[in-house]
Amino acid sequence: MTPTTVLVPDERGMFALAGIPHVHAVAYDPERPHLPVGAGDAEILVAHRLDPAESAPLFAQLPRLRMVQLFSSGVERWTHVVPDGVALSNADRAHGGAVAEWVVAQLLAHVRDLSGYRIKQQNRQWEAHRTGTLSDRNALVFGAGDIGENIRRRLEPFGCTVTLVGRTARPGIVDFAQGRAMLGDRDVVILALPLDDSTVRLVDAGFLATMKDGAVLINAGRGELVDTEALLGESGRVNAILDVTDPEPLPVEHPLWSAPGVVVTPHAAGITDDVLDRCWSAVARKIAAYVAESRATVTG
Amino acid sequence: MTPTTVLVPDERGMFALAGIPHVHAVAYDPERPHLPVGAGDAEILVAHRLDPAESAPLFAQLPRLRMVQLFSSGVERWTHVVPDGVALSNADRAHGGAVAEWVVAQLLAHVRDLSGYRIKQQNRQWEAHRTGTLSDRNALVFGAGDIGENIRRRLEPFGCTVTLVGRTARPGIVDFAQGRAMLGDRDVVILALPLDDSTVRLVDAGFLATMKDGAVLINAGRGELVDTEALLGESGRVNAILDVTDPEPLPVEHPLWSAPGVVVTPHAAGITDDVLDRCWSAVARKIAAYVAESRATVTG
Repeated sequence: MTPTTVLVPDERGMFALAGIPHVHAVAYDPERPHLPVGAGDAEILVAHRLDPAESAPLFAQLPRLRMVQLFSSGVERWTHVVPDGVALSNADRAHGGAVAEWVVAQLLAHVRDLSGYRIKQQNRQWEAHRTGTLSDRNALVFGAGDIGENIRRRLEPFGCTVTLVGRTARPGIVDFAQGRAMLGDRDVVILALPLDDSTVRLVDAGFLATMKDGAVLINAGRGELVDTEALLGESGRVNAILDVTDPEPLPVEHPLWSAPGVVVTPHAAGITDDVLDRCWSAVARKIAAYVAESRATVTG
Repeated sequence: MTPTTVLVPDERGMFALAGIPHVHAVAYDPERPHLPVGAGDAEILVAHRLDPAESAPLFAQLPRLRMVQLFSSGVERWTHVVPDGVALSNADRAHGGAVAEWVVAQLLAHVRDLSGYRIKQQNRQWEAHRTGTLSDRNALVFGAGDIGENIRRRLEPFGCTVTLVGRTARPGIVDFAQGRAMLGDRDVVILALPLDDSTVRLVDAGFLATMKDGAVLINAGRGELVDTEALLGESGRVNAILDVTDPEPLPVEHPLWSAPGVVVTPHAAGITDDVLDRCWSAVARKIAAYVAESRATVTG
């Protein structure tokens, strides 16, 4: 049985996949449409640094393609681009820890008013003021996957009650209807959901109006989970910390940049110095599982 | 047996101690030296809002005083002030959670470069950059008491290895000599120690020189744990996040305010909106234990 050909975008990837049995890794240049010789029988394409809008010429040269492997958690930019019969594989569990770390970092900075204290330092002002705390506060996390579980594990030691909201209720997780019913008494509401037809604009005017005064909304999922106009209408009453926006990138003139009580970061929650290690580990794990399974199916 | 008279500085305290058996609470004004009638037989003084430098006239009127109960974790401002034979009782376990929360908030803000991203928002700049992370980093915490344990519990879920340093080695805790030997490979060094003759200026020029480039020193203990001049000499190479300083309050013209890589907050780590609840709970617990024990000793 011949090895599985995998198209890999760089040397680091060639190194990361070198130890996987039955994988024949071939380097390609994601910025050029022409494939190297011998790459046309590839079954797996690692789509790092490849623009989905520019990918059609590449797919046309890959009749045996079975799977597109991404570096992201979300797959929504690729669902309408890959050919029929080709699976999309996300970078499962690569980003949960880093994104949860960003959520907790921003939430703590908000409740402990680190920016207010930064201004006091700039003014050389030695004067404490009372701030909030996470102790005895409560959080609702929409999304019960890897990111949600990582958020829960990091928040609970602060004395914060965390409820995860998933598609179906199960032990420790409530469903969307139950989650919506809890909105009104929550200090913190966190979005850690994939974007699809069932989640787009989950946070609309009605959702926001139910949140209590001074509550914090944190979006670590996708910008389109939130109705931006509705959020602008509630800014000041409800705080918002957004790593993702709609539109994205956020144009220079957009009112979100300076809306009261709004913090914006440029889709950076997962961008730590170990991001490529995390991604290539996840990609190697998923490709190894795919190859082992496809060979078991053929030989079994 | 007569109840124990306790001097209480305000109405909130009268309420907090109302349920404790065998306690006769009497309100006093910590800003006036004259005691109310019937307060002269007090055995316990709750020294909240009382200035240690102004306390001598009060002590002179309290011949039966056995214990001074503080609102702080540290007792060093009172050790040379209370009369012989009078015990000092700190607000045990009142502040550990809030101080640990401040430590983790500041540490996460530093490693995830929240201030760099705040500037990008002010400049309306949508551009991510790689930051550090706590994942796979290591921290050394000098101080294995309530604050140290609270820090450990909050840091470990981020994938950060935490070593506590105490006076004597015991399971999970290394001693000072072992701690000093670990300094050179630590990303984060946290001070959560009381100030006494054995800890004053623990962090001197030699200690700082051993820390690695780019490491972070966080002082959540007392300012005099650190040699300020030596720290100024290393600022820029080593980062410092200081909730306490020497001198304190920090004078307006002091170079620490604007030293490179130095964050200063005004002894605010414990100042959250629930601080008085936490303090009065701890004080009520300690007074209840004192009264129960003294009665058991007398009757037993």
